[in-house]
Amino acid sequence: MADRKKRLLTGDRPTGKLHLGHYVGTLANRVKLQQQYECYFIIADLHMLTTKNTPDDIKASCENACHVVLDAIAAGIDPYKATFYLQSAIPEVCEMNTLFQNLITVPRLERIPSLKEMAASAGRAEMPYGLLGYPVLQAADVLCVKSECVPVGKDNLAHLELTREIARKFNSLYGEVFPIPESLEGEVGTLVGTDGKAKMSKSLNNAIYLSDDAQTVAKKVKGMFTDEKRVHADIPGTVEGNPVFIYHDAFNPNKEEIADLQERYRKGTVGDVEVKEKLTIALNNFLDPMRERRAKFESEKGLLEEFIVEGSAKVREEVKQTVFEMRKAMGLASVWNRMRRKVEKRQKKQQKQNQE
Amino acid sequence: MADRKKRLLTGDRPTGKLHLGHYVGTLANRVKLQQQYECYFIIADLHMLTTKNTPDDIKASCENACHVVLDAIAAGIDPYKATFYLQSAIPEVCEMNTLFQNLITVPRLERIPSLKEMAASAGRAEMPYGLLGYPVLQAADVLCVKSECVPVGKDNLAHLELTREIARKFNSLYGEVFPIPESLEGEVGTLVGTDGKAKMSKSLNNAIYLSDDAQTVAKKVKGMFTDEKRVHADIPGTVEGNPVFIYHDAFNPNKEEIADLQERYRKGTVGDVEVKEKLTIALNNFLDPMRERRAKFESEKGLLEEFIVEGSAKVREEVKQTVFEMRKAMGLASVWNRMRRKVEKRQKKQQKQNQE
Repeated sequence: MADRKKRLLTGDRPTGKLHLGHYVGTLANRVKLQQQYECYFIIADLHMLTTKNTPDDIKASCENACHVVLDAIAAGIDPYKATFYLQSAIPEVCEMNTLFQNLITVPRLERIPSLKEMAASAGRAEMPYGLLGYPVLQAADVLCVKSECVPVGKDNLAHLELTREIARKFNSLYGEVFPIPESLEGEVGTLVGTDGKAKMSKSLNNAIYLSDDAQTVAKKVKGMFTDEKRVHADIPGTVEGNPVFIYHDAFNPNKEEIADLQERYRKGTVGDVEVKEKLTIALNNFLDPMRERRAKFESEKGLLEEFIVEGSAKVREEVKQTVFEMRKAMGLASVWNRMRRKVEKRQKKQQKQNQE
Repeated sequence: MADRKKRLLTGDRPTGKLHLGHYVGTLANRVKLQQQYECYFIIADLHMLTTKNTPDDIKASCENACHVVLDAIAAGIDPYKATFYLQSAIPEVCEMNTLFQNLITVPRLERIPSLKEMAASAGRAEMPYGLLGYPVLQAADVLCVKSECVPVGKDNLAHLELTREIARKFNSLYGEVFPIPESLEGEVGTLVGTDGKAKMSKSLNNAIYLSDDAQTVAKKVKGMFTDEKRVHADIPGTVEGNPVFIYHDAFNPNKEEIADLQERYRKGTVGDVEVKEKLTIALNNFLDPMRERRAKFESEKGLLEEFIVEGSAKVREEVKQTVFEMRKAMGLASVWNRMRRKVEKRQKKQQKQNQE
């Protein structure tokens, strides 16, 4: 077992289709990591409920779960090697969540800045109790399959630190059950939206989706913000921080073409139209192989669901085992077993008396 | 079903044997209520973990669970009518806990004063996250068996109000699943400890236990604090607030004897010794029938455990049904069922193709 692959867990909330920002931020990294690690991808619908818990949100999560899986496969994840699973299909994770909640304090959780941002962006004036515990439930996710590695960006580095604290605290209090998961840095990129103003995001309507068709991509690129001071093509423009050039850098493999466009842009000898047309070509070249994989897996009805259902069944068995080990280490199992043994003894004795 | 008994849930953490303070505060009331209600008594070991979660605490909880049941039976609870169950034997309650956590905010929980007191008395400088959520887990307990009534004292009235809020919030968001439980006032009494200084409590070592034998009771009464200004039997003493007379009022049915003792005490014509001897007799008369019931149930090995194990099995089935209804109302069930149906359809189709 010396050369077995280390286990890695990561995932997404099923809140919508994935876009180029997700690709740059996480997916590209995951596609690389799958060679080296045994990958578990959680579809975190219980986490979704911390900020989106209306019946409509939940209803949409079914379709969105399949989007997430299909987008991951399109981006290059091999579904026959990776394990996809639906968090709410593993109720045992809630038991871990409930037990872990005693190992961490409120002030400790309040020091995690991303949670306040999440509450604010979900329009919650007051922090939902479940949202403050988001990283505790995440700890349950990571530890329920005894994941050894978690890819992290800057936001969730603080979350993983909490998972590590909980694992250490549990192990020191009750005995070694959990590996202390390592962070895998690499999920660093964020991508500006087509509006050039903020990070690409569904809610800001500034996203190009991995599932957009070629015409949609062309249309979105055509509408992209560039250098706003450049009202004519013959005015010298700024390349730095210009979203069109950021996208060229990220998705156009033709470095000579980019250098040429940049030079002419700075001089005022190329129009936005040409820069954008070349970006559209580059993006569609980038997305075309994804579209092929998408079409292939989408055409087989029920296949994505099969990945999720079978992955969840497999994970559930593993988590049951983890919870068994937790209960055993804590002594909860022996409380129950002692009781049951005494009852069995009593009932055997009674049977014997009845027979006599 | 018009005259079916309403369902009631209440219980204790398995942290030790019950004492006269518990009798006055809750047990006496429960003994009365059992005639009128279908009673569920939770042994709340998951709640214990919010402040006591060392392996020793958990180990002790097995014995303590039996103490709690035996004390309740001794006090007059009919174990063949009531249902006793162990909270940690119902993992589904953790799922309810996790789902309910999104229905309530941190500031709302922080407004419940008893939680801060609990943290302080458990010597926690910082509030454990699980302890702040104590009333959310309680809501799961009350609602998991769809309890319609909860006996409350002044502390847990605020907790029940939170249960009611969660039930209303769930019902309005997802549809009617839970009854809104009513509070049954009546658990009002607190009893001063034998030291006369604070509420009777195990940790203050000022308690007379329901399981104390006659000699122990005599010894504890002999050591009780009375009127500290009364250094001789001939000094007139104060009856009001005097723990010895408080106990006489609570446990001595002979009102004439009490009136006589009070009069002579005020005049300075009775010694503490006589007042205490009569209290000892009264307390032992009060405890004797409990001792008989205790001895009877204690002698049958495994019987208490059987009540707990069988009660827990019964409750677990009910809670599974409740969780099923919750998931259905929320739409989580249909997300999963839709996926599974698509997988079944796919697999049937494949089988058919393989046969052709």
